[in-house]
Amino acid sequence: MSTGADFPATQSWLAHRVSYGETDAMGVVYYAEYLHLFERARSLFIRERGMSYAEVEKRGVFLPVREACCRYRIPARYDDELWVRCGISEWRRASLLFVYEVHAQDRATLMATGSTEHACVNAEGKPVRVPDWLRGLFG
Amino acid sequence: MSTGADFPATQSWLAHRVSYGETDAMGVVYYAEYLHLFERARSLFIRERGMSYAEVEKRGVFLPVREACCRYRIPARYDDELWVRCGISEWRRASLLFVYEVHAQDRATLMATGSTEHACVNAEGKPVRVPDWLRGLFG
Amino acid sequence: MSTGADFPATQSWLAHRVSYGETDAMGVVYYAEYLHLFERARSLFIRERGMSYAEVEKRGVFLPVREACCRYRIPARYDDELWVRCGISEWRRASLLFVYEVHAQDRATLMATGSTEHACVNAEGKPVRVPDWLRGLFG
Amino acid sequence: MSTGADFPATQSWLAHRVSYGETDAMGVVYYAEYLHLFERARSLFIRERGMSYAEVEKRGVFLPVREACCRYRIPARYDDELWVRCGISEWRRASLLFVYEVHAQDRATLMATGSTEHACVNAEGKPVRVPDWLRGLFG
Repeated sequence: MSTGADFPATQSWLAHRVSYGETDAMGVVYYAEYLHLFERARSLFIRERGMSYAEVEKRGVFLPVREACCRYRIPARYDDELWVRCGISEWRRASLLFVYEVHAQDRATLMATGSTEHACVNAEGKPVRVPDWLRGLFG
Repeated sequence: MSTGADFPATQSWLAHRVSYGETDAMGVVYYAEYLHLFERARSLFIRERGMSYAEVEKRGVFLPVREACCRYRIPARYDDELWVRCGISEWRRASLLFVYEVHAQDRATLMATGSTEHACVNAEGKPVRVPDWLRGLFG
Repeated sequence: MSTGADFPATQSWLAHRVSYGETDAMGVVYYAEYLHLFERARSLFIRERGMSYAEVEKRGVFLPVREACCRYRIPARYDDELWVRCGISEWRRASLLFVYEVHAQDRATLMATGSTEHACVNAEGKPVRVPDWLRGLFG
Repeated sequence: MSTGADFPATQSWLAHRVSYGETDAMGVVYYAEYLHLFERARSLFIRERGMSYAEVEKRGVFLPVREACCRYRIPARYDDELWVRCGISEWRRASLLFVYEVHAQDRATLMATGSTEHACVNAEGKPVRVPDWLRGLFG
């Protein structure tokens, strides 16, 4: 999993305020919620490159998640302001790998790290080569 | 909202174990989770009448929620076994009203009550008369 | 439920981008997610008055939800930018009523309306009079 | 990640019906929901050994998640009946590793696999040796 040192240069930062609904009875953000944060960061990342993921789908390309991992370091709590950094660390023929870091408000304290591997498929779910226009967005 | 006394005779009971992911930092089940419970109870109710909601949709009938209400009486906690009772209290021309009760494990202590009003629409989202075969399921 | 015309003058607007995780197989925002939106808007509303809800709790005052209602008018979709307006429409001795409106990006198209009634309790869960410092925040 | 062949012999199977609230606009179960399923399977696994996780916490032992991974193979859909298998694949001094498999109704078609690594900590969050009574439950 990525550390701050080698995070991909093309990246986005999502600001996120922790709501009550994201916490659990331990008083901290429930572990599944980080995957929601990753998705929000991923969407923002694509949008900031000039195209929404909704638009990607309209062009007939879908990026279903094949694998997701998260490493939890410091628990986040209600009302915390978090910053989620997102980038793409690897392009393969028919898949790509997003990496994430969840930081505290200071953007320096690392709370969690993660990654999601996405297949590139068409509307029928068949794997397809990552189109150049998609790859070009992040160039 | 319905009390036990006048709950519709045709009804289903859903058993549900509270998970950590449903609780919040107050140590109790988060308020939005009750709408998930209502949906689970509603699906079970339809399934126990002999047709899944998926099948209802395949026949071209959709029942989007128009209004949902929940009254919270006693908070539920992690690992509680809850019993959710569901019935239909009212049929209108192009809509229907489901009612719910969330009980403790004893099926006697009322933790919450609620209702959801559903429009009856076709695949294009246009309101349609509640079909006889749907109404007949609950007869 | 409130319409735009008589919305309380002291109010906050929360901007919210719809994520994939908030949608369901009908392609629209799942009905329980609106209660999460209401909570986010409520927290922002309190924070914008100069105090976080976390701080309210530290002072020994808790505002558990007693009843929540939502009326759904126009479904929201993935990637929509929503604006959630929140205000307090009623103060009672030991409870208060928040009201909400969910708008499209234009802040004019009303997608949903709702309300939540909150008890005012102490750390032991006993109802207490709404403290003056709390009421004063919204004065 | 574990395949069926070498799944730990001490195991539990959780039955789970997919609700609408767990699906997303792609028509399939949203990827974060699998971590909720894992938690439900884990809780059942502990409960079937004769102790609830709530009881584990009452004895002063907490098992926060340090890392979670999920590999998605076949998407699950609304109303599917899933079976989630859970076991412990590894005990370390102050941590343990749960593994999961999500199967279709036939308990043979593998939809997803996953794992969660848990630290063993006391009420102050300090790492402690896995107590013998905990390990003994799964013996």
